[in-house]
Amino acid sequence: MQEAVIMLTRIDHIGIACRNLDETIAFYQRTYNFSVFHSEVNEEQGVREAMIKINETDDGHATYLQLLEPIRDDSPIAKFLAKHGEGVHHIAFGTADVKAAADAIAEKGVQVLYPEPRRGTMGSSITFLHPKDCGGVLTELVQAAASEDTH
Amino acid sequence: MQEAVIMLTRIDHIGIACRNLDETIAFYQRTYNFSVFHSEVNEEQGVREAMIKINETDDGHATYLQLLEPIRDDSPIAKFLAKHGEGVHHIAFGTADVKAAADAIAEKGVQVLYPEPRRGTMGSSITFLHPKDCGGVLTELVQAAASEDTH
Repeated sequence: MQEAVIMLTRIDHIGIACRNLDETIAFYQRTYNFSVFHSEVNEEQGVREAMIKINETDDGHATYLQLLEPIRDDSPIAKFLAKHGEGVHHIAFGTADVKAAADAIAEKGVQVLYPEPRRGTMGSSITFLHPKDCGGVLTELVQAAASEDTH
Repeated sequence: MQEAVIMLTRIDHIGIACRNLDETIAFYQRTYNFSVFHSEVNEEQGVREAMIKINETDDGHATYLQLLEPIRDDSPIAKFLAKHGEGVHHIAFGTADVKAAADAIAEKGVQVLYPEPRRGTMGSSITFLHPKDCGGVLTELVQAAASEDTH
């Protein structure tokens, strides 16, 4: 059987945990002149979030900073903040097929956290890879929605 | 006086601290089919490092993973590993003029760690912003060398 080729074609985003989303947005705006491209609440992930677009990528998508504030104490972001304080929470690779990529990566012995992809930012499909299998880096895989630019 | 416009035009790289560079390169190769674009030793920073190019960016450059292994115990990466273990160490924004960007950001009240830019990967000029002023995120500014593709 031929091995599936895993195609991760961009850094989709860097996820940053913060205690106060509005203050963190204000920091990025004041310091770097960045502005918010999209914001939403993801109830399942337990976060309020803002996406700052940094650059376009050559696979037809873009790279963002994703600012994440917990909306409840049992959110993974709340637990991260309690343990580590504010800072980088995860990195995310973009792929055209998150399910195929996750399955192929699982075959390499890396633990995939969601058996089926879940809903991510801007209608994307996402899963996560366990940091213990990824050199301490919580790693997300993202398949953008067909129309990514829906605010 | 007109305020200087700060132009950070890409995510240049994500810096990842690791204990064993060769094993970490092997992980990224085996798991994602990524290959090393460039590697070098930076004596001043006290690291052995490998750059994995993930995608091209619309400012004419690219986004990389930067894998960093300390070469001595007083390297900032050695101290980070002792305190936090392996994982994301910093994020880096690309800019056409690192000195101008750093000066403008310093005026916003953010501590810039090097008064004058130092030598970064692939002949780039770099400085860092203190994480205490950046929501816990150690943030690097990178001006690529005139010819970035010199291996």
